[in-house]
Amino acid sequence: MNIKGNVVIAQGGGPTAVINQSLVGTILEARKFPQVNSIYGALNGVDGILNQNFIDLTRETSYNLERVATTPSSALLSTRTKPTDAYCRELFKILKLHNVRYFFYIGGNDSSDTLRILNDNADEEDYDFMAIHIPKTIDNDLVINDHTPGYGSAARYVSSAFMGINLDNIALKGIHIVVVMGRHAGFLTASSALARKYPDDGPHLIYMPERPLDMEELLKDVKTVYDKYGRCIIAMSEGVQNKSGEPFLADLVDELDRDEHGNVHLSGSGILADKIASIIKAKLNIKKVRADTLGYPQRNFIGAVSDVDSREAREVGEKAAHFAMLGDLDGSIVIDRTGNYSVNYRLVPLEMIAAKTRYLPDNFITEKGNDVTRDFIEYVKPLVGTNFPNPCRLRAPFVAKK
Amino acid sequence: MNIKGNVVIAQGGGPTAVINQSLVGTILEARKFPQVNSIYGALNGVDGILNQNFIDLTRETSYNLERVATTPSSALLSTRTKPTDAYCRELFKILKLHNVRYFFYIGGNDSSDTLRILNDNADEEDYDFMAIHIPKTIDNDLVINDHTPGYGSAARYVSSAFMGINLDNIALKGIHIVVVMGRHAGFLTASSALARKYPDDGPHLIYMPERPLDMEELLKDVKTVYDKYGRCIIAMSEGVQNKSGEPFLADLVDELDRDEHGNVHLSGSGILADKIASIIKAKLNIKKVRADTLGYPQRNFIGAVSDVDSREAREVGEKAAHFAMLGDLDGSIVIDRTGNYSVNYRLVPLEMIAAKTRYLPDNFITEKGNDVTRDFIEYVKPLVGTNFPNPCRLRAPFVAKK
Repeated sequence: MNIKGNVVIAQGGGPTAVINQSLVGTILEARKFPQVNSIYGALNGVDGILNQNFIDLTRETSYNLERVATTPSSALLSTRTKPTDAYCRELFKILKLHNVRYFFYIGGNDSSDTLRILNDNADEEDYDFMAIHIPKTIDNDLVINDHTPGYGSAARYVSSAFMGINLDNIALKGIHIVVVMGRHAGFLTASSALARKYPDDGPHLIYMPERPLDMEELLKDVKTVYDKYGRCIIAMSEGVQNKSGEPFLADLVDELDRDEHGNVHLSGSGILADKIASIIKAKLNIKKVRADTLGYPQRNFIGAVSDVDSREAREVGEKAAHFAMLGDLDGSIVIDRTGNYSVNYRLVPLEMIAAKTRYLPDNFITEKGNDVTRDFIEYVKPLVGTNFPNPCRLRAPFVAKK
Repeated sequence: MNIKGNVVIAQGGGPTAVINQSLVGTILEARKFPQVNSIYGALNGVDGILNQNFIDLTRETSYNLERVATTPSSALLSTRTKPTDAYCRELFKILKLHNVRYFFYIGGNDSSDTLRILNDNADEEDYDFMAIHIPKTIDNDLVINDHTPGYGSAARYVSSAFMGINLDNIALKGIHIVVVMGRHAGFLTASSALARKYPDDGPHLIYMPERPLDMEELLKDVKTVYDKYGRCIIAMSEGVQNKSGEPFLADLVDELDRDEHGNVHLSGSGILADKIASIIKAKLNIKKVRADTLGYPQRNFIGAVSDVDSREAREVGEKAAHFAMLGDLDGSIVIDRTGNYSVNYRLVPLEMIAAKTRYLPDNFITEKGNDVTRDFIEYVKPLVGTNFPNPCRLRAPFVAKK
C-alpha cells in the first residue's frame, strides 16, 4: 500500500508497566516510512478518535519518547469503552476525515475486537486501511500468544512481593492471605510461585479462577500447612469462582459492586482477602491472620519492570509498524516462543484473537488444584527478566544449650 | 573493657528491607576484635535468648553474610514480645550463663527499652556488659534521630507505588484512596508526596495521624480536587485519628480487632480504605472510587531498596561494634544529618530513646493539615536514594479538529 496518509495510535484497557515501550516502538519505526504524513496519538483510546482528541506525535522529541517508554501506564491515556458496531462506524468516519490509513491499537482482546469491526467497515467501503492490534495485558489471557507484553513485569512485581511477604512471615509467623489481580485467568496469581527458593517458602497454597474454590477444602489445606510450618501464605486470584462459576465474592457479601457491563468489581477493594481471613480466623481458631490485596501497583509499579518484558513490548510495537508499512498487512501481533529462551513475532488475522480468553492450561495446575506445576515454573521463569531477586538465609549451626 | 566474652545479636519488631545490613555490619566488624570469642545470633529476638535458641554466626561464611545483607526482613527472625522487668531478669541470667559481654539489639523504641532494663541489671550485679541499640523502623519514629534505617527504603517503595497509581489514575480517571502504614507517626504516608512531578500529579491530599481527621472536611477537600482535575488520589495513614485521639477506624466499624497489648490491628486488612471509599462514593455520588491498602510489601519489598538507606543501615551496625569494642560504651546509635546530604553517627544513653515516640514536626505539615510542606520534601528527598524513578509525559501539540 503506497497511499500517503496519517497514522493513528491509541491505548485501551488497563495499563501495564511496559505499555509505552510498544507505543514508542511503533512511533519511532513508523516515522521512518515515506508514506506516513503524520502520526497522531488518540487520547483515551477509541474515545479520543470519536472526539478528535489527537496529539501530533510527529512533533515529539525522540529523547522524550525514550523517557516515556520507560514510564508505566498508558501515556496516551486509556478507556474502558467497548465499541459497538454503530460506535465503530462513527470512528471510521473520523478516521477517513483525517485521512488515516494506519491504525495501531495497543490493548487486550476487546481492543482487538474493535479493530476487527473497523477493518470490516474499511473493506465494505473499499477504503485502503491497515489495522494492527498490538497485544498487552497483565492477565496474559490472549489466545494463540505464548505470553503477552505486560505480564512479565506484573509477574515480577507479584513474585517479588510474595518473596518479601514470605521473609516477613518467617520472621513473624502467622497466616497471610494475599489476593492477586486476574478476573478470568490465573496466570498472574500463579506467578507467585516464583517467590519460592527454600523448601518451606511460601506461597504454600495457590488458588486460581480455573478451578472452583471450595471453602471447606481451603480450610483443610490451610490447616495442613499451618500444622507443618506454624505458618501459611495463601495466594488467591481475585477472580476465584464458586462451583456454579460465579465470583466467589458473591458467596461472601450481600451486595456486589458492578460496572456498566455488569461485571463485578474485583480490584479496588480489600474485601475478598478480608472476608477469607475472617473465615480462617473463626473456623481454624488462629489468632494471627493477615490479609493483603496487592492492588493497582501490580499493573503500574515503576520499580519492578522485567527487562525481557520491556524488550518484547518494544519489539511488538516495531513489528506492528513493519507489518503495516512493509507487508501491507493487518492483524494482531503474536508472540511465539521458539526456544529456551527465544521468541519470534508473527501476524494473525484479528478474528483469531478478538474477544477470546485464554486460561491456564491443565498441565500448569496441580491435580489438587491448589498449586502450580513445574511446567508452569519453567514457562514463567524467563518472562520475569534477568537479575531476579535471590533472597538468602543464614545457615549457621545451633549453639548447645546450657 | 578487655574481658573476653561472647556477643549476642538479635532483631526485634517489624522487619525492614535493610535490617540485615545492620546485622551483617555488626557481625563482620565484631569478628575483628580479639576480645570476642563467639558471635551468637538469638532467634526471634529476646525470645531466642530466653529459650537459648542461639546460632553461631562465627561459623557463617562472609559470602553468605553479604547475600543475607541484601535480603529484606529479619534473618534472625523477630518477636513482638515487650519484656517486663521480670522477663529481663530471666534474659540476664541466660546472658551470664553464656558469658555474653556484648548485646546488640536491632529494633525500634521497644527494643531500646529492653536494653535499658538489661543494662540496669548488669550495673546492679557489677557484671561487665555492653548493650547497644541499633535503630531500625520504617515508621521513622525514634526521637533524636534525624531518621532511622528502614525508613528510606519504605519511603522509596511508597512513593514509587504512588507514582504508578498516579499514572494509572491519569489514564483512567477516578478517585483512589490509598492507605499507608504508620500507627502514630505520619512520616511514611508523607513520603507519598515524592510521587509528584507535574503540577496536577497526585497524591492530591495527604492525611496523617498528627492531625485529627474530620470526614466532612475530607469530603470537601476531595470534592474540590475532583472538580478541578476530574480525579483525586488520597494518601491516608492507617493511624489517622478522630478528634478524641482514637483510631479513626473505631468510628467506622462495630468491632475492632486488637492485639495482646490492646492496640487496634491496623495493618493486615483493607477495611479502613474500603470504608472511606464507600463513604466518598455515597456522599459525593461518584461512581469510580478505588481503594488500595499498600500492606506488608511496604516494609519488605525486595525491589525498591534505597541505596542511601542500605549504606546507613550497614554503617549503624559497624558503628555499634566500634562503640562497644573500642569505646567501652553502651547506648543507642543515633543518625545526625550534618549537611545536604551527609550524616554522622553518635551514641546516646538508652533512656533518651527508650519507649519514646517521635511525630512529624509542625513545619512538615501544611496549615490545613491535608498535605506536607516543602520543608518535608527537602528532608525526605535524599533518604529514598539515588536513581529515583522519573516518570515522563508526552508533550506533543494537539491536532486541529475537522
